[in-house]
Amino acid sequence: MTASSSLFSCSMHMEVLTPKISKWPKNFVSCHSKISYVETNYLKSTCYPISRFFCINNLKKTRQRDGIHCFSEGQKFQLDDVVEAQQFDRDILNAIFEVARDMEKIERNSPESQILKGYLMATLFYEPSTRTRLSFESAMRRLGGEVLTTENAREFSSAAKGETLEDTIRTVEGYSDLIVLRHFESGAARRAATIAGIPIVNAGDGPGQHPSQALLDVYTIEREIGKLDGIKVGLVGDLANGRTVRSLTYLLAKYKDVKIYFVSPEVVKMKDDIKDYLTSKGVDWEESSDLVEVASECDVVYQTRIQKERFGERLDLYEKARGKFIVNQNILNAMQRHAVIMHPLPRLDEITVDVDADPRAAYFRQAKYGLYIRMALLKLLLVGW
Amino acid sequence: MTASSSLFSCSMHMEVLTPKISKWPKNFVSCHSKISYVETNYLKSTCYPISRFFCINNLKKTRQRDGIHCFSEGQKFQLDDVVEAQQFDRDILNAIFEVARDMEKIERNSPESQILKGYLMATLFYEPSTRTRLSFESAMRRLGGEVLTTENAREFSSAAKGETLEDTIRTVEGYSDLIVLRHFESGAARRAATIAGIPIVNAGDGPGQHPSQALLDVYTIEREIGKLDGIKVGLVGDLANGRTVRSLTYLLAKYKDVKIYFVSPEVVKMKDDIKDYLTSKGVDWEESSDLVEVASECDVVYQTRIQKERFGERLDLYEKARGKFIVNQNILNAMQRHAVIMHPLPRLDEITVDVDADPRAAYFRQAKYGLYIRMALLKLLLVGW
Amino acid sequence: MTASSSLFSCSMHMEVLTPKISKWPKNFVSCHSKISYVETNYLKSTCYPISRFFCINNLKKTRQRDGIHCFSEGQKFQLDDVVEAQQFDRDILNAIFEVARDMEKIERNSPESQILKGYLMATLFYEPSTRTRLSFESAMRRLGGEVLTTENAREFSSAAKGETLEDTIRTVEGYSDLIVLRHFESGAARRAATIAGIPIVNAGDGPGQHPSQALLDVYTIEREIGKLDGIKVGLVGDLANGRTVRSLTYLLAKYKDVKIYFVSPEVVKMKDDIKDYLTSKGVDWEESSDLVEVASECDVVYQTRIQKERFGERLDLYEKARGKFIVNQNILNAMQRHAVIMHPLPRLDEITVDVDADPRAAYFRQAKYGLYIRMALLKLLLVGW
Repeated sequence: MTASSSLFSCSMHMEVLTPKISKWPKNFVSCHSKISYVETNYLKSTCYPISRFFCINNLKKTRQRDGIHCFSEGQKFQLDDVVEAQQFDRDILNAIFEVARDMEKIERNSPESQILKGYLMATLFYEPSTRTRLSFESAMRRLGGEVLTTENAREFSSAAKGETLEDTIRTVEGYSDLIVLRHFESGAARRAATIAGIPIVNAGDGPGQHPSQALLDVYTIEREIGKLDGIKVGLVGDLANGRTVRSLTYLLAKYKDVKIYFVSPEVVKMKDDIKDYLTSKGVDWEESSDLVEVASECDVVYQTRIQKERFGERLDLYEKARGKFIVNQNILNAMQRHAVIMHPLPRLDEITVDVDADPRAAYFRQAKYGLYIRMALLKLLLVGW
Repeated sequence: MTASSSLFSCSMHMEVLTPKISKWPKNFVSCHSKISYVETNYLKSTCYPISRFFCINNLKKTRQRDGIHCFSEGQKFQLDDVVEAQQFDRDILNAIFEVARDMEKIERNSPESQILKGYLMATLFYEPSTRTRLSFESAMRRLGGEVLTTENAREFSSAAKGETLEDTIRTVEGYSDLIVLRHFESGAARRAATIAGIPIVNAGDGPGQHPSQALLDVYTIEREIGKLDGIKVGLVGDLANGRTVRSLTYLLAKYKDVKIYFVSPEVVKMKDDIKDYLTSKGVDWEESSDLVEVASECDVVYQTRIQKERFGERLDLYEKARGKFIVNQNILNAMQRHAVIMHPLPRLDEITVDVDADPRAAYFRQAKYGLYIRMALLKLLLVGW
Repeated sequence: MTASSSLFSCSMHMEVLTPKISKWPKNFVSCHSKISYVETNYLKSTCYPISRFFCINNLKKTRQRDGIHCFSEGQKFQLDDVVEAQQFDRDILNAIFEVARDMEKIERNSPESQILKGYLMATLFYEPSTRTRLSFESAMRRLGGEVLTTENAREFSSAAKGETLEDTIRTVEGYSDLIVLRHFESGAARRAATIAGIPIVNAGDGPGQHPSQALLDVYTIEREIGKLDGIKVGLVGDLANGRTVRSLTYLLAKYKDVKIYFVSPEVVKMKDDIKDYLTSKGVDWEESSDLVEVASECDVVYQTRIQKERFGERLDLYEKARGKFIVNQNILNAMQRHAVIMHPLPRLDEITVDVDADPRAAYFRQAKYGLYIRMALLKLLLVGW
């Protein structure tokens, strides 16, 4: 989670841009070779166009976008893997969001709904996460792609058989064009991306990262509020254990004049590393225990679930924490008309059900925005711009 | 199961007919709005056409069917959800059966085999039922549609996370165009249909309903015997616990001059509510303990499995019950040449294996008819007539 | 595993060749009838062409191949089921390998990538095997076909419900065009093939057969070494329990001047039945405990995992056995430049990770060849030559 451990799978360079995979090689064996070199902690990848068709196609698309999103300090943007939120800077985020907007407009059975036809995505889930899996599988299918599903991939590496993640990845990459990986160990996605010749998408690695969730959160704010610079965001609930709010905070720091409020029970307060990071980046933040006051100030009230499983035996602490900051009609009354309530879901009773009917309840729309973000990522990884 | 608790998702009205979903809305968010009003216990839904193409298409199809099946008291037929057997009257049943017949004729890679291209069905199964799931998924794929599978959806609402069914449905409807729901609680499908903006198909809700099974049973009789009015049906086996035979009985009561025989061990006799219902509808029924006699009279011998799991500790009662009424060569000898044997499957030894070779053994054909019924339901729910 | 128990689903005859299924019959119910007769222990199947299109198509393809691979003693080749390695003779193996080579050349979204469009494969797995399942599902999808997945099919035949495999097959064949079966009982695939009207592929039946693995092993040798006659193969590791090496040995015996070395810890030595079989076929074999010596002689070093689960309580024996023959840099140094290392995967530490970078490490390519073999089998079973 620190800068020094970052793997930047997005590289900036001047060449014709193609993703890791841009064509079924003649013999299915990836003829793409990652020419990688490590430089001041970043792994940069350079890909060479394989098919003339895709070259031309990409050239055209790239040219079309010149000067809009694809330049960052005079360089173009390329996406090889999605490993962690830190790999995205503001320009890349904007570029992804623009593609996501295009995804929202795709109509059933239109040519755009078939851009991933012939591509095969494997969902390799070492722990179940039906919500995330369905979102990725829906995204792939909405673009005409196909899916291989593995819900209980732990069997691959069972104690009895003991295969390494690396070996599993090298096998599964033979069967598919992209792997969506959910793993129980922090850093697993990075290890997979290092070994794989095809794109890896991190769909959560233990206590580590869940970058597509972070992206969809920022995209939701941009879509619902219309801007990211100058926004005020209240992060509420379990700020100690929620990787969602940690990643979101990290990404928000890339925008200007952002103000962040932390509202949480004492036992699950935001940790110092994130606070220090915000301070170092000049981001204004404060802690508060007055949710009504914060709600009246904010553009976004981002509520999270108190995670019972983190409290172990101390259910008394859990019960005390969970009832402390509830988003209800009272909070709605305090909120401005343009503001919204977000939540990564699932929701228990930290947002009361009567809030759902209010147009400012954005959490189900947020889940839907996640679909578009994942469609955008799959498109960028498999066929490029 | 009583009339006063019925949710009629099929409504009769004069307008242009479209299903809940007839086109991918521009931004995937369903622009369909259920305009619902409750009237003498029925929830009626009205939909407005979204796409010109589908309007014209539907108008043509509707016109073609005018006066045949789609009028009931001068009104047309529309299918929004499939929640329970009670929602279907005789006209609607006939209309569905006609579509199912069309489904039987579809050839591989014909245009008709692609009518659900671009549609995405989610199978949300809170308890496993491989047979039902495969049947629905095959039906969707035989029509060119795609499938998102969730076999162990209980995880969605695990004690640890505690999400409500309603929240899950609102999330999954963002990813798909139709949800096939299997749940362990009676009434779950109705709750889902009430909250969802896309069609819900009940694939069994605990001890409640399993309407597509009831439909396929009636369709099988119509296909095998050639009529439904005037038929004689022997229901055999576990009549107390089998929701299949209860639903079938309910539907058979909609036809004329039907005679029903109940043949079951004493401990699993048909309950009084169904008998009273038949009597109130003027349906002739009797109980018998002479399976040979009944078999000689009937057009259909509908055998069911004695469900061991219902007997708890009383395995002695189970053993006594299960051996009592077996369909074997002896029963075949008593049966008329045109008559058939049905069974909802799985079968244990209540039909002996040597019966399988007899052309009157209809139970595997019955499973196949289920495929056509499910194809018909998916077509009607997603693209209408 | 003995000749007298063989089911030959490949038959040789002079007629126009079609697979079990060559067209969706008008009413989905297979109009294909296996006209079978048993003759000197072999079950031979004869199919009649159903669709004119496919006839012409097959005739043309058959003619094209006349005299090349499809003749064996003046007769043509037809594939109905894949049940066991013994069903393939040398000519059939060559024919399958030729189709597999074609599969390697298929490009994304080419017409060839759609030859199984409209076909539905059911994977019916009574025990999990993610690797095998993904390989078959990828193969089906790479050819444009669709998949119904059942990972935990044991539920079908749970103690509570007790359905026979035969009944399950008769139900699932109503939903699909081909069944890939993984079962825990030896002989299950044969029982399924006998009852089914659609093709059955054995993806492993307990301690019995796993014929597609055997085929891909031989195909890998042919692709990597360029020949099968005259090769020298060292089989290393658990030769007592590995069905892989047993089946491979069986197939290698069909080629000329083959020399086989067995290198294994004492407790897991190759059993006498295979040794006797080799001797009876005139195949040269010897046992050795000097892996370096064998490696220097061989074209192929086929390493296998010592299967801990076979040792029960005797973990001391397991620990002693597993460390005995490791393929490492030392073995690489002894090997000839053209030789390769194979492994059925998963691999533990019987091949050290530093070996992976050597071009002679063929085990991940081997997994990929498995994809092509499975594509070839699916093509042959569903649309023929």
